[in-house]
Amino acid sequence: MNIALIGFGRVGQALIELFITKKKYIFDKYNLKINVKCIIKSNGGLYSETGIDLEELMSFIKKNEVCKHKLWHNEIKVESMIKNANIDTLIELTPTNIVDGEPALTYIRNALENKKNVITGNKGPIVLKYKELKAIADNNGVKLKIGCTTGGALPSISGGIYDVAGSEIKSIEGILNGTTNYILTKMTNDEVTYEKALKEAQEEGIVESNPSLDVLGYDTASKIIILSNVLMNTDIKLSDLKIQGITDIKLEDLKLEKSKNKKVKLIGKIEKNNDEVIAYIKPMQIDESHPLYSVDYKNKGVYYKTDTLGDISIIGGASGTMNAAASILRDIILLKEY
Amino acid sequence: MNIALIGFGRVGQALIELFITKKKYIFDKYNLKINVKCIIKSNGGLYSETGIDLEELMSFIKKNEVCKHKLWHNEIKVESMIKNANIDTLIELTPTNIVDGEPALTYIRNALENKKNVITGNKGPIVLKYKELKAIADNNGVKLKIGCTTGGALPSISGGIYDVAGSEIKSIEGILNGTTNYILTKMTNDEVTYEKALKEAQEEGIVESNPSLDVLGYDTASKIIILSNVLMNTDIKLSDLKIQGITDIKLEDLKLEKSKNKKVKLIGKIEKNNDEVIAYIKPMQIDESHPLYSVDYKNKGVYYKTDTLGDISIIGGASGTMNAAASILRDIILLKEY
Repeated sequence: MNIALIGFGRVGQALIELFITKKKYIFDKYNLKINVKCIIKSNGGLYSETGIDLEELMSFIKKNEVCKHKLWHNEIKVESMIKNANIDTLIELTPTNIVDGEPALTYIRNALENKKNVITGNKGPIVLKYKELKAIADNNGVKLKIGCTTGGALPSISGGIYDVAGSEIKSIEGILNGTTNYILTKMTNDEVTYEKALKEAQEEGIVESNPSLDVLGYDTASKIIILSNVLMNTDIKLSDLKIQGITDIKLEDLKLEKSKNKKVKLIGKIEKNNDEVIAYIKPMQIDESHPLYSVDYKNKGVYYKTDTLGDISIIGGASGTMNAAASILRDIILLKEY
Repeated sequence: MNIALIGFGRVGQALIELFITKKKYIFDKYNLKINVKCIIKSNGGLYSETGIDLEELMSFIKKNEVCKHKLWHNEIKVESMIKNANIDTLIELTPTNIVDGEPALTYIRNALENKKNVITGNKGPIVLKYKELKAIADNNGVKLKIGCTTGGALPSISGGIYDVAGSEIKSIEGILNGTTNYILTKMTNDEVTYEKALKEAQEEGIVESNPSLDVLGYDTASKIIILSNVLMNTDIKLSDLKIQGITDIKLEDLKLEKSKNKKVKLIGKIEKNNDEVIAYIKPMQIDESHPLYSVDYKNKGVYYKTDTLGDISIIGGASGTMNAAASILRDIILLKEY
């Protein structure tokens, strides 16, 4: 498989590391050789017609000197690279832009139109334009894989495709945002206020300095939209959802629920009844009988109700940079039939 | 897809019903047409070169008069049918024989050698000879799908193949037997003895009249062996496992654990440390932090520890006849790339 990688932040670098450490395993188990021909950063990139020596590249990455590599070019025309480079798969890992999806949206569209498979970890273009992009992929006989966008290592997309194959998903319910789940678990278990739980989590580096997309529910909403549009063949957008975050949650409320053996979780849910679609994001009380009850701290989970296989829940997937890279690798493997 | 079905009990009949009710869904979503050319029972069978009219067949099934169908033959030579019928896939649903796997083992081997895919719900041949059968499938360029053997609708195999693709499974832990889990849950929640819980479950038709393979742990052991040999590339057999069932569990023990907020579950576990393999089936105490804590009554679950994707748990899948048939349909869909 000949790959171009666009966007080379922490996940992209971790992916290169995985390609090195997993090289033998991937070949032995999947009969797959991964050849990275092109890496594009915002300020230039690397290209080799025969493939980049990844172990050599790692030594440049570790010294933060990628632009001193012999294959480095300060100017790389992305469009012509996507069109002309002899690759079959583009891995798109540029920063997420939830407003118009750019520049990723253009890169993905170009790649699919030029008959390259695309794997992306970028929620922006997928929330906004999944249907359009999927149609381009289908028309060009290539694949669009987006497993990393809905919980990273949590196999929500692969679960919703393979594990329930042949059955119809009637509803999707998920705890899909690690930051809010961490805050709610911390408040409940340590009996601290929202402000204190948030501050502690930020000091420990668990939560970003600006977590507003998380705590207001928009990250969960994006993931529910993607799951629904990919798995339930809907065409919903952000404005179709009722979204309530966790910023108004009071410690007193959590203590009261805890005394009743309940937990409060930020749940994203979509339900299809005939042609009516009900979708919302809101904090909800769940008890021990709920399949996502055990999903605490940064853990995530998703719960599918199906027509013929019953209810199926998938929980877990670690949430570090390497694990996100591993979810990109999962999509690479799943490009192939085996 | 041209199919032959061998073994036509409740699951096989439910599968025919699913082929009818899901016909449009399967074609619309997967672009797949399923054509059943041959159905073989112990006392004869049906064969049509162009395909059997399934709706017409259902009316004979409902009257329990399949042998009055115009395509019925009292004698069908299974071997020659497998070899000569113009089919691409054999669905093998004969009764399980855990001692020597026959007659299913011979049917499966013949089909694979004649370049037919095989889907089976039969634990016997898979527990005994998975490695050999998989090698025959690989050598003949066909597939052997066994998802129904390790929990029916629970997507334990598809989860262990697709959801963790590219990562390595380090251990598998599961609550894989509905009967024992039902008895243990009933004992714990209703505070009744093992004998009483078993008797009530039998009277309600939830547990078979002879549940010894279940309560002694052998059903769980079979499933752990299959999961391990399929997903972790081991070659273990029943005699490699320490197996302890639930027949010695006392109500007092469960009450004590319950007072500590713990539950007792029949756990099957396999762990690979370098070349050492540790495998056992035994009742274990688990607390709320265990990902399978919420798996009660007839519910099942499996918990994979992986190297790069973290811990992933899959819980659920309904446990009726139709749901088992739906797990066969899942494997049919997964034969195709999409």
